[in-house]
Amino acid sequence: MALQHKILLDESEMPTRWYNIIPDLPAPPPPPLHPGTREPVGPEDLAPLFPMALILQEVSSDSYIDIPDEVQDVYRLWRPSPLFRAHRLEKALGTPARIYYKYEGVSPAGSHKPNTAVPQVYYNAQEGVRKLTTETGAGQWGTALAFACSLFGLECEIWQVRASYDQKPYRKALIETFGATVHPSPSVLTESGRKVLAADSQSPGSLGIAISEAVEVAAQDPEIRYALGSVLNHVLLHQTIIGEEALLQLAKVGETPDLIVGCTGGGSNFAGLSFPFLREKMAGRMNPIIRAVEPAACPSLTKGVYAYDFGDTAGLTPLMKMHTLGHDFIPDPIHAGGLRYHGMAPLISHIYELGLIEAEAIHQTECFTAGVQFARSEGIVPAPEPTHALAATVRAALEAKETGEEKVILTALCGHGLLDMAAYDRYFSGDMVDHDYPRDRVQDALSRLPSVDG
Amino acid sequence: MALQHKILLDESEMPTRWYNIIPDLPAPPPPPLHPGTREPVGPEDLAPLFPMALILQEVSSDSYIDIPDEVQDVYRLWRPSPLFRAHRLEKALGTPARIYYKYEGVSPAGSHKPNTAVPQVYYNAQEGVRKLTTETGAGQWGTALAFACSLFGLECEIWQVRASYDQKPYRKALIETFGATVHPSPSVLTESGRKVLAADSQSPGSLGIAISEAVEVAAQDPEIRYALGSVLNHVLLHQTIIGEEALLQLAKVGETPDLIVGCTGGGSNFAGLSFPFLREKMAGRMNPIIRAVEPAACPSLTKGVYAYDFGDTAGLTPLMKMHTLGHDFIPDPIHAGGLRYHGMAPLISHIYELGLIEAEAIHQTECFTAGVQFARSEGIVPAPEPTHALAATVRAALEAKETGEEKVILTALCGHGLLDMAAYDRYFSGDMVDHDYPRDRVQDALSRLPSVDG
Repeated sequence: MALQHKILLDESEMPTRWYNIIPDLPAPPPPPLHPGTREPVGPEDLAPLFPMALILQEVSSDSYIDIPDEVQDVYRLWRPSPLFRAHRLEKALGTPARIYYKYEGVSPAGSHKPNTAVPQVYYNAQEGVRKLTTETGAGQWGTALAFACSLFGLECEIWQVRASYDQKPYRKALIETFGATVHPSPSVLTESGRKVLAADSQSPGSLGIAISEAVEVAAQDPEIRYALGSVLNHVLLHQTIIGEEALLQLAKVGETPDLIVGCTGGGSNFAGLSFPFLREKMAGRMNPIIRAVEPAACPSLTKGVYAYDFGDTAGLTPLMKMHTLGHDFIPDPIHAGGLRYHGMAPLISHIYELGLIEAEAIHQTECFTAGVQFARSEGIVPAPEPTHALAATVRAALEAKETGEEKVILTALCGHGLLDMAAYDRYFSGDMVDHDYPRDRVQDALSRLPSVDG
Repeated sequence: MALQHKILLDESEMPTRWYNIIPDLPAPPPPPLHPGTREPVGPEDLAPLFPMALILQEVSSDSYIDIPDEVQDVYRLWRPSPLFRAHRLEKALGTPARIYYKYEGVSPAGSHKPNTAVPQVYYNAQEGVRKLTTETGAGQWGTALAFACSLFGLECEIWQVRASYDQKPYRKALIETFGATVHPSPSVLTESGRKVLAADSQSPGSLGIAISEAVEVAAQDPEIRYALGSVLNHVLLHQTIIGEEALLQLAKVGETPDLIVGCTGGGSNFAGLSFPFLREKMAGRMNPIIRAVEPAACPSLTKGVYAYDFGDTAGLTPLMKMHTLGHDFIPDPIHAGGLRYHGMAPLISHIYELGLIEAEAIHQTECFTAGVQFARSEGIVPAPEPTHALAATVRAALEAKETGEEKVILTALCGHGLLDMAAYDRYFSGDMVDHDYPRDRVQDALSRLPSVDG
């Protein structure tokens, strides 16, 4: 009897709505606050940066939001994405667990990021925006936005953290192939950038600085807006198509997950996979454990505090109540650049506080070991970020081997690592080091949390 | 009405046999000759290098050969591969043509090469071989063989042309991720390599030198054999699963191709796509034009002679009757490293001589222009090699626009370009140059063709 590796959906089976989890939660998430007044922000506060359609999604109380036809048409270039049964990994581990992984690396950018880049660009195009600006670290988000802009005819200007810009020339070339412009950040093109360069002409940059540059340019011109690749409610919303598809795919093979694991940086991939399953869990239709996996070097959920903080280093954004290590905490340079964010999406933080999900933190060498074992059995080289989910999957599968449980594990392989091979090179060279949670630096950063009461 | 982008097959619909075109041809291809005796080679001549199962496939007169279950199981990690209708490219070109592309970049190596690497390793494993050696240029073939060896527990040692080894560090890391060892060639590990290095310690290497190194190591140990990624009949045979799937997929949407185009280096991708359609054409069931596209810098079909020549630069292989530019002709350094081969598969050469297929040659900047247009409309960045097929597709689609013909064009996108972004960077920088057919150097190389008669 032949083993089935891939569970596919036809394009006609692709979900046509995104799922908004907020109305189903037992309590609403705390609102973002204006950085000046400390009052809840209103739509008008966000209008200079985002189109109204996205602002309304950010605060929507509808459980489902229709995916526009034009967005569905682009999604179908790669969606529905495949769900794989990892028969060969199971065999390599000798586990009775059945492991399924939802693979988002089939997208044009090689990750889940186009799921939100495409609707974000679509809504901006609908409202007559000429150009979008954004920041990118590892480059996944910048690539996704460049691709989406190329489809809808928008200009796209990207500030990429200089360290990453210099280390990953292929990302720059890929972004340019999709027609966007990319600058190393800090740059001389903005006041924020020039200020940083004046203090340190060799600055390697940071996500916080790159955000400041992109926001500064967008705020100066009504035809330009800004786009964010994670953290916000509307971004998490767009990613729920991942979990909705996975639900349909598991149902096709008659499976119900016992454990769902996803890696978390800003949180959009994890939310995208898990929120539709959490809906099913809250409705009593299944009862999976849902576990977020973060890097030990940047453990916002497991070691951060739940407090109002800024989304960026410079303190320009609204205050969001979230798990944070402090807005000016700079994580050590682990290879999973997409997980090096000081905070966690407010919505995920809230759900964690409600006790609906678990979290664990893992060191990077264990993650790369799992990534290599995965590549050698399943054939796909994972990006450094999802190796965290794979390491947690391997842990759970080996526990099941101990106990003999025929557990069903679902995870998200949110991107391939073909543009991150330098990290694997480092792993094989033996030079990769683990970074422990820097308690002192975090405590220092947390001492500068903004005050909200009073 | 929603546009359908992907035509998928279930794993259960995957073809279970490879197609051998030789018995269906109006005349048999000329046999390979022993380099010493100039007599046709027998199985025993090839036994030190290849397992008997592959040698028998090389000379088989069966029309179909069953794909072993173990090979099918691995194929299903990524096969059946998707067939795409390029709606967005058609719209960008404003053509009435309907363009379909069969996408092989979904494989673990990112190209069609695993289609033959997996069965080659399987048959070697069956015959107790411990290790395989091979050469690789651009790196696609080395990656595919490394992946296949990791699945069947064989060691894998690869000699990569030094220029490519130095320019493409990601390929090396990917090969190592799959557990293989890769050396720059020329190396000090072989007599062939040491000889070259003694003459020129800075030699950039060549495919011919790398072949000599891999063959030398395999020939010295009965537990080690050699594997080749193109040119030979059994390699072309394994690739026919591409065309067999495409036939089923086009039938699902009720289409018959008017034109089939594929890029040709050694010829395995082109043969894999086109041979099953050529069977249908010879049987009178359809009548597509079938066109091979080669680089203008290395035009073996359109500018070479049809003669017996060596497969490698050093003259160690059997003599094969093929279109050749001379076995010691070194093509200019175009970016499509996979198409820089002095000869063409003997079977394709024979079929070209029979008048069953056409050929054209295209310069690389036209190819990259088509590749970028493709990426910006379809979302997939093509490898430099299939940009040749895309450039020919664009030419045909624009002709159809002139004439108003609703032509159906089928092409093979045999791999993605995510590990070749440096070539795109070069294209965008404006530094890419076109290389004309070097008539003098080819005439010089052809003056050294081996003599066969007499």
